[in-house]
Amino acid sequence: MTDFAATKNMFFLPDGVIYLDGNSLGALPRAAVTRVEKTTRDEWGEMLITGWNKAGWMDQPTKIGDRIGRLIGAEAGHVAMGDTLSIKVYQALASALEMRPERRVILSDSGNFPTDLYMAEGLITSLGRQHQLKTPAPEAVMAHINEDVAVLMLTEVDYRTGRRHDMAALTRAAHAAGALVIWDLAHSAGAVPVDLAGVGADFAVGCSYKYLNGGPGAPAFIYVAPRHAENIRPALSGWLGHDAPFAFDLNYRPGAGIERMRVGTPPVLQMAALEAAMDIWDMVEMADVHAQSIMLCDQFIAGIEATCPALHLASPRAGRERGSQVSFHFEHGYAAMQALIARGVIGDFRAPDIMRFGFTPLYIDQGDVQAAIAIIADVMANRLWDQPEYKTKARVT
Amino acid sequence: MTDFAATKNMFFLPDGVIYLDGNSLGALPRAAVTRVEKTTRDEWGEMLITGWNKAGWMDQPTKIGDRIGRLIGAEAGHVAMGDTLSIKVYQALASALEMRPERRVILSDSGNFPTDLYMAEGLITSLGRQHQLKTPAPEAVMAHINEDVAVLMLTEVDYRTGRRHDMAALTRAAHAAGALVIWDLAHSAGAVPVDLAGVGADFAVGCSYKYLNGGPGAPAFIYVAPRHAENIRPALSGWLGHDAPFAFDLNYRPGAGIERMRVGTPPVLQMAALEAAMDIWDMVEMADVHAQSIMLCDQFIAGIEATCPALHLASPRAGRERGSQVSFHFEHGYAAMQALIARGVIGDFRAPDIMRFGFTPLYIDQGDVQAAIAIIADVMANRLWDQPEYKTKARVT
Repeated sequence: MTDFAATKNMFFLPDGVIYLDGNSLGALPRAAVTRVEKTTRDEWGEMLITGWNKAGWMDQPTKIGDRIGRLIGAEAGHVAMGDTLSIKVYQALASALEMRPERRVILSDSGNFPTDLYMAEGLITSLGRQHQLKTPAPEAVMAHINEDVAVLMLTEVDYRTGRRHDMAALTRAAHAAGALVIWDLAHSAGAVPVDLAGVGADFAVGCSYKYLNGGPGAPAFIYVAPRHAENIRPALSGWLGHDAPFAFDLNYRPGAGIERMRVGTPPVLQMAALEAAMDIWDMVEMADVHAQSIMLCDQFIAGIEATCPALHLASPRAGRERGSQVSFHFEHGYAAMQALIARGVIGDFRAPDIMRFGFTPLYIDQGDVQAAIAIIADVMANRLWDQPEYKTKARVT
Repeated sequence: MTDFAATKNMFFLPDGVIYLDGNSLGALPRAAVTRVEKTTRDEWGEMLITGWNKAGWMDQPTKIGDRIGRLIGAEAGHVAMGDTLSIKVYQALASALEMRPERRVILSDSGNFPTDLYMAEGLITSLGRQHQLKTPAPEAVMAHINEDVAVLMLTEVDYRTGRRHDMAALTRAAHAAGALVIWDLAHSAGAVPVDLAGVGADFAVGCSYKYLNGGPGAPAFIYVAPRHAENIRPALSGWLGHDAPFAFDLNYRPGAGIERMRVGTPPVLQMAALEAAMDIWDMVEMADVHAQSIMLCDQFIAGIEATCPALHLASPRAGRERGSQVSFHFEHGYAAMQALIARGVIGDFRAPDIMRFGFTPLYIDQGDVQAAIAIIADVMANRLWDQPEYKTKARVT
């Protein structure tokens, strides 16, 4: 049984803040401060270039990859860290399209996070505009799966509403039609149990700065199914994905399995922060996290619906059908979120009218949820959001 | 006049070490320790998601880009940080090839750093193998410039020998033939004066963990000439290169100028370390660094040639023709370098037989060079390298 009081103690949270935005940027593991300092001072400073071997920097991408792999049901040795999620989407999609050269459709949905669609657009243009990117509504995806589809590329949990796709059913249907599947787990990893091996996913990608708490700009991850790992061509064929990077051959020869999805030099300081977060994750079972998440989200929905009639639930009501977030529609959602942030309840706003709240059982408990409900109820009942200073949009919320 | 005694004091160097490998991984700026700690604890920890605005994380890539831009002669507002050098090479090359659709040759050289060639290979395959990558010997590049060449892609300073290309002459010749030019400044930025605007480079890329001292895994930079910046199509069209990333549009629309070469979330902790390094660079003039570098390299060459007849100079003898490194051929170079590292002189080895020593005036002075010469002379005169433990190759040196 996961001890959530213990994990909560392992995070730093500022006084007077109830942080319901761990789905955007996870909170700071206390140990990350000393861990990053140690890597900076004792490894970079003292070991200098020898840190690549002595401190194990070179192997971090696959070592940490395996620790995340446990949380997403990946086979050991098939997850690597590096780059950003956008780059990892590109790698997965480029490799997948080459495996279905006779097919011309990339099927996604209109709820996918935009960067996934943008990277696909860019790749399609580079490949000579022979492919088509289809983005039906999320609920219509299943009906669009057919034998024209080369790749089904979806984000499991919708970043605005928290609606979950049925990974097993969609993967099965895509495979039955001869298509490959890429799952973006940005809002799944560390939020809900994922069973990549069990559902038979071909590729998966995700970031580590949300639920995984790796810190701002933490590296992304990529998973390639063992049945494909030795066969795919890496489109971004960088030297650290070479079979022998330090032989400095003039020609590229892909490394074994997931190693070929590495590109350039890994971000060692970011990896150090992420390692501190993974020390906490190693103590945690995803089934416990999910049960706790559903309980907190249900408590929040009940509390808000009982006190804030102007807020309308944008997330699925059934716990199993959503990720670890709850969203509400509200016409003045942007201003209301600014008013909440000013009062220490940090969620975020997503256009056009969504107030989004993330629930992260590792450091948010029932007391936090109860306190947040009371503040939101006050802001709504007394129209505290109706102030000019809350209506000017900043670049990021 | 740059005060090199002052800059040396601003770096941490371990006791008993003479660090001649700053061309591979720069030394630790003392201020980076507290700077990274502050970003971790006071920004990530205290500000959480609001750090993107409050702490200025979102603008770091172009703010730091401009500070590096000064060192490489770029126009203000035309350099952005992010990703790795391999990714930036890919971006520059993909955009450049589209600007010369009727041409089919990428001209590089056999002395280029392998990842540049590997990324080009990968791109050529993605584009349907219609292009050819030519890699003549470095001294034969000029003779290969003709009207078949779409892009001339070169690393100014050879990573093994330190030989510099003539940027101005090669750029002029390429432009006269109607080709575009991409300069890789990995071993130039912070090592030698570069005048991108003056030579009329089309694109430039580089890393910040070598001479720039940004730390292990520090982000790369990319420069796009002002005359191209608003016209190029970004092949890696990620959301942070979108004109309005937080509008979450479903279709990509490139951001203004260099902003479109951003891809995903910037590595905030790495950026913090790099900022500490840039605080030192802001005190420095590249002309002074170059003069000091030539003096130190000349001192080193004279000292080694006077004491170590078995070592044969692999670098250009004339200071203006080399970067800030000196390389020697020696049949037992690998073992000799291990013996030196065991005695505190850290350089590195590059296959097949090159012992490479980097000279970084910001923290290496004449006394260091003299002490290094004495140790190398002792190792060579007494064959101290001829020990079994120095002959087993590690993955990285």
